[in-house]
Amino acid sequence: MIDRRRFIGASVLAGSSALAAPPDPPAKILAPPKDVTRILASYIVGGQLADIPAPVRKEASRTLLNWVGCVLGGSQNEAVGIAISALSPFFGPAQASLLGRKERTDVLNAALINGISSHVLDFDDTHLRTVLHPAGPVLSAILALAEYQPVSGGDFLNAMVLGVETECRIGNAVYPAHYDVGWHITGTAGVFGAAAACGKLLGLSEQQMVWALSLAAAQPVGLREMFGTMTKSFHPGRAAHNGLTAAFLAAKNFTSSDHAIEAKSGWANVLSTQRDYAEITEKLGRTYEISLNSYKPFPCGIVMHPTIDGCIQLRRQYQLTPDQIDRVELRVHPLVLELTGKKTPQTGLEGKFSVYHAAAIAIVEDAAGEQQFSDMAVRNPVVTALRDRVSTVVDPAIKEDQVRIAITLKDGRRLEKFIEHAVGSVDAPMSDQDLEAKFAAQAEGVLPATQARRAMDLCWNLETLPDAAALAEAASA
Amino acid sequence: MIDRRRFIGASVLAGSSALAAPPDPPAKILAPPKDVTRILASYIVGGQLADIPAPVRKEASRTLLNWVGCVLGGSQNEAVGIAISALSPFFGPAQASLLGRKERTDVLNAALINGISSHVLDFDDTHLRTVLHPAGPVLSAILALAEYQPVSGGDFLNAMVLGVETECRIGNAVYPAHYDVGWHITGTAGVFGAAAACGKLLGLSEQQMVWALSLAAAQPVGLREMFGTMTKSFHPGRAAHNGLTAAFLAAKNFTSSDHAIEAKSGWANVLSTQRDYAEITEKLGRTYEISLNSYKPFPCGIVMHPTIDGCIQLRRQYQLTPDQIDRVELRVHPLVLELTGKKTPQTGLEGKFSVYHAAAIAIVEDAAGEQQFSDMAVRNPVVTALRDRVSTVVDPAIKEDQVRIAITLKDGRRLEKFIEHAVGSVDAPMSDQDLEAKFAAQAEGVLPATQARRAMDLCWNLETLPDAAALAEAASA
Repeated sequence: MIDRRRFIGASVLAGSSALAAPPDPPAKILAPPKDVTRILASYIVGGQLADIPAPVRKEASRTLLNWVGCVLGGSQNEAVGIAISALSPFFGPAQASLLGRKERTDVLNAALINGISSHVLDFDDTHLRTVLHPAGPVLSAILALAEYQPVSGGDFLNAMVLGVETECRIGNAVYPAHYDVGWHITGTAGVFGAAAACGKLLGLSEQQMVWALSLAAAQPVGLREMFGTMTKSFHPGRAAHNGLTAAFLAAKNFTSSDHAIEAKSGWANVLSTQRDYAEITEKLGRTYEISLNSYKPFPCGIVMHPTIDGCIQLRRQYQLTPDQIDRVELRVHPLVLELTGKKTPQTGLEGKFSVYHAAAIAIVEDAAGEQQFSDMAVRNPVVTALRDRVSTVVDPAIKEDQVRIAITLKDGRRLEKFIEHAVGSVDAPMSDQDLEAKFAAQAEGVLPATQARRAMDLCWNLETLPDAAALAEAASA
Repeated sequence: MIDRRRFIGASVLAGSSALAAPPDPPAKILAPPKDVTRILASYIVGGQLADIPAPVRKEASRTLLNWVGCVLGGSQNEAVGIAISALSPFFGPAQASLLGRKERTDVLNAALINGISSHVLDFDDTHLRTVLHPAGPVLSAILALAEYQPVSGGDFLNAMVLGVETECRIGNAVYPAHYDVGWHITGTAGVFGAAAACGKLLGLSEQQMVWALSLAAAQPVGLREMFGTMTKSFHPGRAAHNGLTAAFLAAKNFTSSDHAIEAKSGWANVLSTQRDYAEITEKLGRTYEISLNSYKPFPCGIVMHPTIDGCIQLRRQYQLTPDQIDRVELRVHPLVLELTGKKTPQTGLEGKFSVYHAAAIAIVEDAAGEQQFSDMAVRNPVVTALRDRVSTVVDPAIKEDQVRIAITLKDGRRLEKFIEHAVGSVDAPMSDQDLEAKFAAQAEGVLPATQARRAMDLCWNLETLPDAAALAEAASA
């Protein structure tokens, strides 16, 4: 079993702990497995915005801004259009916005569609310890909910942090075993985050929150088998829809199990071969998983980012052109081939799951944006010719945010590059300015520049807004 | 591992095979695991009503009648009222009926609510080989769909048989390992049945059907941990909702995996520790799982039925009263305690998962209908006093439709009863008249008797109806 947790790096863990923990750690909480769900529910119900340290709240606003940008960037995607076309005959009242679009629909379907938009470009945030994309399930659900009932910016931020905490802690408890089995953790653990955040905004009692988590446990979404198809982006959307449904039902006392996470036939036992409940129950309120969130500079699977980063650096350093190159050799972390090992992608979407295409296009075009993952880019003969000369070697000594690249030129020269921390990883994070530039690029052609600017400002200032729904309005076409 | 498949009994298997198979068996179909999903999709897309033998179609109409009755019986349940109250603010246009009620809603939510109604009393049909309740996911989805687009009775029946075939074959492929892990197979395999049947009515191509099955695979519903709570009945409802959603998306070419069932990260590998793909791909069109469907005489977990049957027989034979009885000893199949082992149920719903309550109430009240699983019945001191004198011994030699009951009287006499096949099992099936009586009892107080009679007639004559939606109208209040 590979220890993917080391990806975070000791320095980051120390850093985030410094952000969040008070100076005197309290006594260790003993968590008998039988109370896992209730302990978590109790924390969610009791959690206050004032308890959340300022740097954590700041990271939440970065997560929010990155997510809104990704929804806008994905909002015009074919998958989103198809989902709306297929399901709109069944939409309820126009209660909530589809960001980046003119349509409005009921809260549940808005959560579904915005969740699809947010993930369809594979450009959204990543909790690197679990490869979970935390914002999609949580924010898709609570932003739609905030358009249906009044929610202050502070309450929104609090619910968001608690929702992300819930899904990531549950993810931590079962990662990597759960992911290795084949589950898409963003949909399977994400549904808990949506239920928790929505339940918080609905003012659930502890018992109702226990039931909401249980109703979430009954509705996991997504297998890794669907990667490379439109269904991957359906997963966070449906997780948002399911979690919101769970919270609505629990709010009316639709009963469910009291031990849905930890019971013998509960979520953690059924959906994972290993589990560590202390990841869920210990240090609640002392550490914040959202502090570990990261944002992608490239719209594709995060395990390819070191390769793209390194190939672009080599191209620029040596002013490389494809015809100079004899072959490209990549030494990569095992997960790279498992997730992005498509040798001959046929579509732009498949290209996002091909480290071979990523390396080739980065060298050919000096970029790896949405255009570089179009159908045309994937079929470009210059790119495919170079792609066929890219080879990979799995090396367990290489970490997930690393790569060792060797380019052999036709003149016999050998160029090497070791990427220690890919751009966008927690150790080399995107700055606020980087995030704004990413947002602006995604909003281009979707919203007028002044409106995009206003949406960004609302993200940064969410905590002071009297009504969080203003953000949804600003991000709608 | 217990071989639960023997529950069906050799005679029944022979019988159903005789019903369905042509005289000359064709050569065995070789099914490489890589084509499982496509082979199944191809069969569903090509399946014609004319291919289905008359006795199979008859069994389908029995399944339909039993299911409509169960929806009516469950339609006034508290769980259904809560679900409607919680979700109706988000309902879409009034396209489809909530059976037994006056409300109408969009097709997807009608499927959800009717699915909850159909299972909330634990009185619906059972495919004994997998303990799957086939009608709920399939019929909830296609009856709602038939109100949205014109569907002839013949097409409805065909889609129903194919949907049940799909979910039960997938269930067969992973049972009992999948169920033993903790999944509620009615929601996890049922979602495929709903997708297949709806996809059939939507006229999906083979590729679209492959995607519909894959979108279903991404949305399994339900853990056994939720048994004894309202969420158990949510499972078939949500499976109907999810399968219908899958079919609608696939119909618009929302892409998904081509190998969702059999791939390394596919449904059968991720959700089960064992699998036999031949159960899915062999003898398609030659055998029909719906021929093995069974209908409950008592509204509770089927594994308690032999006990109820035997206790009622002993009570009648010896005119027993509770005060005569010193103790009741049950020798039961292992699954009985696993599923219905609650010693001290506190609510009527919990009583449905207590073989101790079932034995006691059957002796005290000479019946085991919905009234015998009310909160009042479970708390009746006469019942609880006798319940505390019921003990169980697990005996692997006892089959699932059997029980060995020994009642010791205070005067020292010992009365024994061995139930070889419980009433309602495939070996002792309910007659058409039994099913009508069950339907009428469930419809009482929900529909006028003449309307209930009309709904039953439509079930029996579905195949000849020009428009299957007439049944939904007849079964609405």
